[in-house]
Amino acid sequence: MSTLNDNFLTAYKRLTDSFVPLVGEVNGYVQSTNGKQLRPQLTMLSACCCGLPSDIDADHPLFAITAAIEILHSSTLIHDDVVDNSDTRRGKPSIRSLYGNKVAVLMGDYYLAKVMQTLNKVDNKEITAIVSEAVIKMSEGELLQQQQNGIYMEESDIYMTIIEHKTASFMSACCQIGSTLATDDAMLRNQARLYGLNIGIAFQIRDDILDYMPESVTGKPQGNDLREGKCTLPLIYALKNRNNKEKILALLKEKPLSDTNLHTVIDTVSQGGYLNQAANTLTLYIDRARKALEALPHNSYRDSLYDITDKLKPIIR
Amino acid sequence: MSTLNDNFLTAYKRLTDSFVPLVGEVNGYVQSTNGKQLRPQLTMLSACCCGLPSDIDADHPLFAITAAIEILHSSTLIHDDVVDNSDTRRGKPSIRSLYGNKVAVLMGDYYLAKVMQTLNKVDNKEITAIVSEAVIKMSEGELLQQQQNGIYMEESDIYMTIIEHKTASFMSACCQIGSTLATDDAMLRNQARLYGLNIGIAFQIRDDILDYMPESVTGKPQGNDLREGKCTLPLIYALKNRNNKEKILALLKEKPLSDTNLHTVIDTVSQGGYLNQAANTLTLYIDRARKALEALPHNSYRDSLYDITDKLKPIIR
Repeated sequence: MSTLNDNFLTAYKRLTDSFVPLVGEVNGYVQSTNGKQLRPQLTMLSACCCGLPSDIDADHPLFAITAAIEILHSSTLIHDDVVDNSDTRRGKPSIRSLYGNKVAVLMGDYYLAKVMQTLNKVDNKEITAIVSEAVIKMSEGELLQQQQNGIYMEESDIYMTIIEHKTASFMSACCQIGSTLATDDAMLRNQARLYGLNIGIAFQIRDDILDYMPESVTGKPQGNDLREGKCTLPLIYALKNRNNKEKILALLKEKPLSDTNLHTVIDTVSQGGYLNQAANTLTLYIDRARKALEALPHNSYRDSLYDITDKLKPIIR
Repeated sequence: MSTLNDNFLTAYKRLTDSFVPLVGEVNGYVQSTNGKQLRPQLTMLSACCCGLPSDIDADHPLFAITAAIEILHSSTLIHDDVVDNSDTRRGKPSIRSLYGNKVAVLMGDYYLAKVMQTLNKVDNKEITAIVSEAVIKMSEGELLQQQQNGIYMEESDIYMTIIEHKTASFMSACCQIGSTLATDDAMLRNQARLYGLNIGIAFQIRDDILDYMPESVTGKPQGNDLREGKCTLPLIYALKNRNNKEKILALLKEKPLSDTNLHTVIDTVSQGGYLNQAANTLTLYIDRARKALEALPHNSYRDSLYDITDKLKPIIR
């Protein structure tokens, strides 16, 4: 993977050239605070697993596409931080906290336009369709979540629609794109897509469980979702119990939510076994992702895709 | 133009279908507060002027493209209102003031993704390249303006770069796209592009002059640019005079800027003849736009494009 990674990074750095010094400055900061680059990795691993040779030339479309995917991911994170008023991202100041909301909104738009331009140069209609559909789904998922804010549900169907759209659609798109670059086999492409979809769902459920766990365990403030009026899977399961429901809804009525009420809700959800119940659902999606992998060719890239599912295992139980 | 307009509106309404009720609600509001739809008009007029028959079928790519252009324009306005903290747009509440910054950022992204998807379906590589370059230039222009905030310039070169990017690039793209749909003649396409570029520049200079004029004349609050630290053409011309420069910079040092200082700066610029000087520059760009039209075929569509330049005439003098 090391040559693949080098070629991806070269394409990524080349993509965001601009005559505006401020754009160069923000680019430098974004690049210096990059995360795991999970989405380009998913794309490259899916491609190689499905038969794309790992020694392809540096000008193979895979690299421009993975660069566009990482830029797209940066764009969504920068806009998410505006949307959520977040001052930190990966433990460092967010773009909005360093440069203000104006620059953050504009840089996200600039990145989106660069994605459009790059995909147009690559000129693969199928792949552009997958990416644009993923961007539409991500915003629809976030907007649906926004619409459902403060609505406490007992059924998980709308929650599942939200997370499939806002999180899983992008990971699914990455795996679908990788396989599309490697093979015409519709079954392989579909299995790669399903793998991505299921790890995306698992990824978000895990994140939503972690929000109920203490900062000492997760490194993130506890209870953000509850404070923001987001009803996620552990709460949905807890609300199915009529006794819990009345108690929890009464506690959540308080505006703004006090720490006392917040922690009583968290304890009720946790002690009622609902984090475990959500963890069982998470395990179900990990199993589905692994099942999808079984239909792909067995090689070291498939092993790496399998290893990613290992990292999604629930940290409780 | 009436059938053209009908087909455009049908394509426009179809473009933003979503399963998320909130998206539908915002769409309805955006459509009910639409402006002159100048950019789709420029595209259609340029196309017909350069030889596209006006009785083309409703499924001609022109309509999906003009619909995408209007959606793109909505996206930039919705994000602009977040960037500028504006509570009104065209005399009505802005999306951010009605639904909050979160929904505004996400709706703008949703619209941008719809633009990408629509252009991919149209599958005209040349046109997608023109649009994506325009979106990149618009964000670069806004970011450059942001970077120059509070910097008071005596030369107009950076100002011209800003307005060419943030405003003129889009109008230029519209005219270039229209002509590209109509003809392979590179000279005609270039003249259409130049027409759009020059009316775009004129449009922004006019807007910047109007900011120095009383609300009773323009219907908009006076002096917003000065309050926000934007150095536009009338001020640049005033700062070239050494005596003015010291006086104006001293007045603008006050934070926040008082109404007294604001009006003293406005009076200095206005009474020094610098609005007239900026109006002369505006006239120059109108003349260039008209000159560009002369090379296009003479027909009723060219007359309509000419009429648009009439509306850009300076309102002072």
